[in-house]
Amino acid sequence: MIDKLIDRIKKTNAPIVVGLDPMMKFVPEHIREAAFKEYGETLEGAAEAIWQYNKGIIDAVYDLIPAVKPQIAMYEQFGIPGLSVFRRTVKYCKEKGLVVIGDVKRGDIGSTSEAYAAAHLGRVQVGGSVLSVFDEDFATVNPYLGSDGIKPFLKVCKEEKKGIFVLVKTSNPSSGELQDKPVDKKPVYELVGEQVAAWGEECMGSGSYSYVGAVVGATYPEQGKIMRKVMPKAFILVPGYGAQGGTGADLVHFFNEDGLGAIVNSSRGIIAAYQQDKYAGYGQQGYADAARAAVIAMREDINTSLAGRA
Amino acid sequence: MIDKLIDRIKKTNAPIVVGLDPMMKFVPEHIREAAFKEYGETLEGAAEAIWQYNKGIIDAVYDLIPAVKPQIAMYEQFGIPGLSVFRRTVKYCKEKGLVVIGDVKRGDIGSTSEAYAAAHLGRVQVGGSVLSVFDEDFATVNPYLGSDGIKPFLKVCKEEKKGIFVLVKTSNPSSGELQDKPVDKKPVYELVGEQVAAWGEECMGSGSYSYVGAVVGATYPEQGKIMRKVMPKAFILVPGYGAQGGTGADLVHFFNEDGLGAIVNSSRGIIAAYQQDKYAGYGQQGYADAARAAVIAMREDINTSLAGRA
Repeated sequence: MIDKLIDRIKKTNAPIVVGLDPMMKFVPEHIREAAFKEYGETLEGAAEAIWQYNKGIIDAVYDLIPAVKPQIAMYEQFGIPGLSVFRRTVKYCKEKGLVVIGDVKRGDIGSTSEAYAAAHLGRVQVGGSVLSVFDEDFATVNPYLGSDGIKPFLKVCKEEKKGIFVLVKTSNPSSGELQDKPVDKKPVYELVGEQVAAWGEECMGSGSYSYVGAVVGATYPEQGKIMRKVMPKAFILVPGYGAQGGTGADLVHFFNEDGLGAIVNSSRGIIAAYQQDKYAGYGQQGYADAARAAVIAMREDINTSLAGRA
Repeated sequence: MIDKLIDRIKKTNAPIVVGLDPMMKFVPEHIREAAFKEYGETLEGAAEAIWQYNKGIIDAVYDLIPAVKPQIAMYEQFGIPGLSVFRRTVKYCKEKGLVVIGDVKRGDIGSTSEAYAAAHLGRVQVGGSVLSVFDEDFATVNPYLGSDGIKPFLKVCKEEKKGIFVLVKTSNPSSGELQDKPVDKKPVYELVGEQVAAWGEECMGSGSYSYVGAVVGATYPEQGKIMRKVMPKAFILVPGYGAQGGTGADLVHFFNEDGLGAIVNSSRGIIAAYQQDKYAGYGQQGYADAARAAVIAMREDINTSLAGRA
């Protein structure tokens, strides 16, 4: 799957992931009203609204980008109907040829991580049947429990040709409270990054990248520069561009000399672009076209920065 | 909710949580067969099997114990039907008067943790409606992202009178890879424990315990002794008893002098007791009675150890 991701990045010339994190306040009024009219102000109504909203965005941007990253929390908050839409979104994006990164941040003791890995990347056995469940292409994984929480994911990735992104240095303001703490003069995130590099050694795609990637926030470009060297073969998933404050110039350090090695996520900066002054002309009805314009602007920002680096 | 938990621990004289982690290999044949006959070897069939299995256990043990801890991964692996059974299990246990600890180990950046907190402990707004979703009483939370991943949970806990258990020192063999690393001569888990104590200061129940608890594995009794002192007002959720190797004698250090402050989880040791030699006489048909016998034995083991401590 890392090969497919790289292939699509090259074809689209856009190392971009659109974060499908549908908060209700992003959903245009006409979509919300239609959904509530059909299903009431219920979890089903909310789920229908985010599905229609997602579909509009996917249809408008799928040809421009290699991948999407649905954040499962935004679906889980609408319960069973919401999670049904998560699954439907994954399936629809895959049908459109997109690589799907499930932003699930799961991680537990070994036997439990096995169940999560089966749910999100693998398959489960039920009697004589072997069934796919949520079936994303990649999943994000939390490293706090150590390697026996990660290894079940690696096993499934090998079997199914899928991949993971391990949280290394997250984009949020308080990520340093634990992740920056010095251990033997190195910050915790660097130790985790070294583990990512080690896990990746035995999980190589057909080129020079492994399918064990890492999450490092755009909001921490200096750390990105260090981690690029610590994990030369890991793809870095970079959240925090746009709404969280990261810019194109911050991003160049996350890429290798080959112009690859990173994929930058933007969520509300794309999917709620119509709510920004810059794209207000599109209006609520034009929210999907606004998202397309925002993807094109983001692609230019990143490519200009990459072209301009020393 | 911490008050209700303490009240039920006193009434049952059993600081015990039964982990409802239904793996298919634990489910007796007659239950599996009936479910597959009705729904086929599908996710629906698997979900029906684990629901019937859970219900048998809950009915057999609810009067003996204060709380249950369903591990959501075991439901998530069966997709939407599995998660529907998770929700149904939470609801059924609450109707039986049990405190429900959702073992979800969620945690993300602030806006995303808000959605998880709403999903598991709070409510979501849909138009003019305010709706409960999974609605557990407590949830387990991962601290890797720092305090802005935790604070949305604290906010919901205050509003809804609920609680969390933050992962501090987990029970699995590799937990030390990150959690034991020394920072300023203290291990990482101790730093996290200090944060738990600080968060708990502003989240006190009516007695001497806060509703911000911690997870510390029974498999690490020495660390339990230290953490008991670092977080005197935190309830400790202790996994790892039984199948993972922890014994009653290991547990005494997790409790305060008042005999409270800890609640010990056993999952397969109870719910799959009938598969142990000791309880084999119950047979598959008697799996729920075997679970009841195992709860009674666990209660005795813990209470004997507590009575015998210096």
